[in-house]
Amino acid sequence: MDIQIETVFLVGIGLFTLASTYFLFAHKKAFNSAFLVSFITIISYTLMLEGSLASVGAEGGAVYATRWLFYGLSCTLLMYEIAKFLKKSKEETIFLLYLTAIVMATGAASAYFDGLYMLGFFALSTVAYVMLMYPLLTAVSPHTSAVSKYILLGWTGFPVAFLLAPDGYGLISAATAAVLYLLLDVFTKVFFYLDLHKKMEVQ
Amino acid sequence: MDIQIETVFLVGIGLFTLASTYFLFAHKKAFNSAFLVSFITIISYTLMLEGSLASVGAEGGAVYATRWLFYGLSCTLLMYEIAKFLKKSKEETIFLLYLTAIVMATGAASAYFDGLYMLGFFALSTVAYVMLMYPLLTAVSPHTSAVSKYILLGWTGFPVAFLLAPDGYGLISAATAAVLYLLLDVFTKVFFYLDLHKKMEVQ
Amino acid sequence: MDIQIETVFLVGIGLFTLASTYFLFAHKKAFNSAFLVSFITIISYTLMLEGSLASVGAEGGAVYATRWLFYGLSCTLLMYEIAKFLKKSKEETIFLLYLTAIVMATGAASAYFDGLYMLGFFALSTVAYVMLMYPLLTAVSPHTSAVSKYILLGWTGFPVAFLLAPDGYGLISAATAAVLYLLLDVFTKVFFYLDLHKKMEVQ
Repeated sequence: MDIQIETVFLVGIGLFTLASTYFLFAHKKAFNSAFLVSFITIISYTLMLEGSLASVGAEGGAVYATRWLFYGLSCTLLMYEIAKFLKKSKEETIFLLYLTAIVMATGAASAYFDGLYMLGFFALSTVAYVMLMYPLLTAVSPHTSAVSKYILLGWTGFPVAFLLAPDGYGLISAATAAVLYLLLDVFTKVFFYLDLHKKMEVQ
Repeated sequence: MDIQIETVFLVGIGLFTLASTYFLFAHKKAFNSAFLVSFITIISYTLMLEGSLASVGAEGGAVYATRWLFYGLSCTLLMYEIAKFLKKSKEETIFLLYLTAIVMATGAASAYFDGLYMLGFFALSTVAYVMLMYPLLTAVSPHTSAVSKYILLGWTGFPVAFLLAPDGYGLISAATAAVLYLLLDVFTKVFFYLDLHKKMEVQ
Repeated sequence: MDIQIETVFLVGIGLFTLASTYFLFAHKKAFNSAFLVSFITIISYTLMLEGSLASVGAEGGAVYATRWLFYGLSCTLLMYEIAKFLKKSKEETIFLLYLTAIVMATGAASAYFDGLYMLGFFALSTVAYVMLMYPLLTAVSPHTSAVSKYILLGWTGFPVAFLLAPDGYGLISAATAAVLYLLLDVFTKVFFYLDLHKKMEVQ
């Protein structure tokens, strides 16, 4: 494997080990989703570092389709917290969790396949993503602006990185893509929780 | 791939794109399972059309074991609506959802393997299926007759098609099987919801 | 496949067929998790008997990584009953179910990979396992002692067997490991429920 990508994954494992340790001891909650999200991310990065499940994508770059399956696990937890923060009903929350899982599973398929099927699964993923974002960003709630930063900038950064990466059209290298994904991961999974916990103390 | 099977899958993608669009706009529900079921079915058909996950079954016909894994996702949603319609308790509903997932996962294994293991997993699937059907069809509820048509004719059509298809004994071609499965899909996933929504308005 | 391992798996299928039949008729509960756990174990053993998903582990012994994925399904059910018995809150129960699934999924990865990655995933699995055990064994509840036997002796037996088996360092043969796992399965999945049901009648 490319030594640069390997380094990025090792840095990711290190950062999320720190984050999960912090969330474990700093947040004594019965359902500590902040810890779970960080811990699941360690597992995802370890699997990518091992590398045997990677495939070859656009312009010959390495593609880690499993990344998106693990986002299916971590982002449903994030979405659960977002929905709770925005005071969504139980029924709507479950619908949003299904959409999140669909976005990530079709994302994994889009990363794994090439050409027309990459596009087809990306289109299905985008439909589910728009359906997911619409009720979150239009919610009439004083809390909307607090999470919309993470959603608009953070979450939406992933499909943009995807299209540039070997997952999509390979306009940037797999190593550059790995750095971008890592920055987005830290923003949406660590900074998000630090901010959320601060806001919930204020309430 | 066989051009006939390809056509059937394309028709399936078209029909369920129409159905999911219709359910999205016609049913403004917080938990829109009708949309989710149709959308999951589009994903399943797209994956089968891509074809690289297909295997060779009885008499050399193509087998799409992933079909049954996706039924595990869509049919748990259908079963949730059926259980709610029949006013089953929360505990019993969860039990029925587990059974539904087991029926489909063992169905996928039965499709994937040959000979004795095809039969063994089919037997396990049948046991779970009988346990699933029994409380539904014997429920003393004025609503039982409304759903029993979809269950008795519709759901039970799948294992019959399975045995005839290359999934089972290959007595019919993979293309004929694909047509049969598509008709059953439209009946149990589109007509079912149209009927259910009409009945729930009447209530 | 080794005829000895084959025999152990066949005995396992036989024992859990008896257990699931017994639990089906003896426990008329709306959510019959005892039946589900035994039935899922039949499926797991049938898949291992088929053998095509096995890989080669330490000292050349056979490794069945799927075993741990199925424990992810059955042990979440067991953990649900343990948490209910210890009167854990709904939020904490969901956290414990996530941890259980993480223990088993990282266990599957640890079984599947070799060398440093075997150790790395085993370490992640151990962290989640310790976090799972701590609140269970320190719970101030008159019921703790009743389940701690199954947890301390039973559940903890699995990672010990894992390290000895070809999953880990291959100090014992795959057949010996299969016998050990079977004994632990019967203890934690059959005896546990017989004992639990007796205790719940007494209450």
